[in-house]
Amino acid sequence: MAEKSLSPADFNHKFTVNVRFHEVDMLGVCYNAVYINFFETARLEYIKAAGLMPAKGIFSDGNIFFIVRNEINYRGYAYHDDILDVYSKISYIKNSSFGYDHLIVNQKSGKVIVDGKVVIVHVDLKSRKSKRLPESFIEKIKAFEPFVKILRE
Amino acid sequence: MAEKSLSPADFNHKFTVNVRFHEVDMLGVCYNAVYINFFETARLEYIKAAGLMPAKGIFSDGNIFFIVRNEINYRGYAYHDDILDVYSKISYIKNSSFGYDHLIVNQKSGKVIVDGKVVIVHVDLKSRKSKRLPESFIEKIKAFEPFVKILRE
Amino acid sequence: MAEKSLSPADFNHKFTVNVRFHEVDMLGVCYNAVYINFFETARLEYIKAAGLMPAKGIFSDGNIFFIVRNEINYRGYAYHDDILDVYSKISYIKNSSFGYDHLIVNQKSGKVIVDGKVVIVHVDLKSRKSKRLPESFIEKIKAFEPFVKILRE
Amino acid sequence: MAEKSLSPADFNHKFTVNVRFHEVDMLGVCYNAVYINFFETARLEYIKAAGLMPAKGIFSDGNIFFIVRNEINYRGYAYHDDILDVYSKISYIKNSSFGYDHLIVNQKSGKVIVDGKVVIVHVDLKSRKSKRLPESFIEKIKAFEPFVKILRE
Repeated sequence: MAEKSLSPADFNHKFTVNVRFHEVDMLGVCYNAVYINFFETARLEYIKAAGLMPAKGIFSDGNIFFIVRNEINYRGYAYHDDILDVYSKISYIKNSSFGYDHLIVNQKSGKVIVDGKVVIVHVDLKSRKSKRLPESFIEKIKAFEPFVKILRE
Repeated sequence: MAEKSLSPADFNHKFTVNVRFHEVDMLGVCYNAVYINFFETARLEYIKAAGLMPAKGIFSDGNIFFIVRNEINYRGYAYHDDILDVYSKISYIKNSSFGYDHLIVNQKSGKVIVDGKVVIVHVDLKSRKSKRLPESFIEKIKAFEPFVKILRE
Repeated sequence: MAEKSLSPADFNHKFTVNVRFHEVDMLGVCYNAVYINFFETARLEYIKAAGLMPAKGIFSDGNIFFIVRNEINYRGYAYHDDILDVYSKISYIKNSSFGYDHLIVNQKSGKVIVDGKVVIVHVDLKSRKSKRLPESFIEKIKAFEPFVKILRE
Repeated sequence: MAEKSLSPADFNHKFTVNVRFHEVDMLGVCYNAVYINFFETARLEYIKAAGLMPAKGIFSDGNIFFIVRNEINYRGYAYHDDILDVYSKISYIKNSSFGYDHLIVNQKSGKVIVDGKVVIVHVDLKSRKSKRLPESFIEKIKAFEPFVKILRE
């Protein structure tokens, strides 16, 4: 069964960006890899909103995260100076990894431009191997995102 | 059934890049969106190798292409100045769209760094709607990639 | 005689950016070329504020502009998520070209991070040769920037 | 007195790049900040050619370098897939800083696309303050670049 498409109403977090000149390609549209940057910038705002950004900035508490999968569907075009709302949520948490859903909508037209799914793994600073997520992380996400699926053993 | 992982032996086309300084992030590894650029640069070399690049450069013959889906799995890290072999192939062709498989391997260690799948659609220059791929395109790809799946109606 | 350093008080226009994750390099600081993007994004906001952005977006009225010179001095470091105020002004206008001054200041510390000068030329859409700036452009800049030097023949 | 323009014959080091798709802007030309990346990539090849790259990669020997000034003149356009020769040389060395000259030439037409000057400072790893360049650095540059000006006290 096909998964239900997400809409802005399914999200608690929104971050807004303008498409900058250098982000537009020779076809006059926002270049495909740029949305990956938008997702990432939005996730860091999400982490702040959820109370999870360390006081001295990302990674400063020794918790390192790497992306293990990016998946993005392009459903419309964005142009220079378009205002885009980037919606993000953590939809599930496993032992050492968790998954985000993203949706980017043109603020003026309401049209969906892209959707995406990103998987992130918590990694040990030295070994760069995956490492169980701390309980405090799960608690903060549950408070911020009541419908998150906890898939831990 | 899980899909079989691809290896370099499954590809006819290889394009080599060095990880540049500005492509490395604050964790000291090649930034995740950069691989999307590597895929794209490799595909344009692939198109040239298959005899499909118009004489006056990309899009100059009125055939416009947009990416509709990017999918990428990160399986290792790449560092500044690493030499990476980017393998590409068109694995199927539909009416107006076609799909690529990519694999990026560290040339020195032989380790797979990322794999990915990209879907591209042929678009009408004016309407920006999808448009049936010309037969000449299919013929050239079949000559270059004998095992490509033709899924046309 | 050395030119006097500019300070925020010398500017009428400010545009604020956050340093994004992908803009930070492996030394942990904002990558040097990124400031060129900040200058450019700030200039487009400046052009809007001065009433010079065409209704259908940049270049849509046939006035094309190219950069002929970028000059940038790095006087401090910026880090991930720093809030930077980008100050911009057109300081002189010649026959077909004009010059910007830029200053980027860390909003929290008040420290100057970079300063820069950019020269831009108005270009004919077809020939890509320089083309005299229209009077309407000069009038709007003079209204927005009363101390601009007019160096026209 | 105006400085004499440099030509390819004035350089001992050349590094070749292709303009990639994502490096082209909506006017169809290589985006102005991209040349800063080309300069940087070329300088790292230069450092290798001069025998100055540490065995374990840039910065791995504790010698850290930051850019203090970028200066670039745009004298022509480059388009997607153009092959560009990036010429680099260290033209002078001071106590803790040194200066590069760069020239980028379209390989096919021989036309100069940009020229630039970059100033780099040697920095102490911990304090991030400028630090006298080691004699071994000067000796290697002198061997590679016999006409380098030594402006040390």
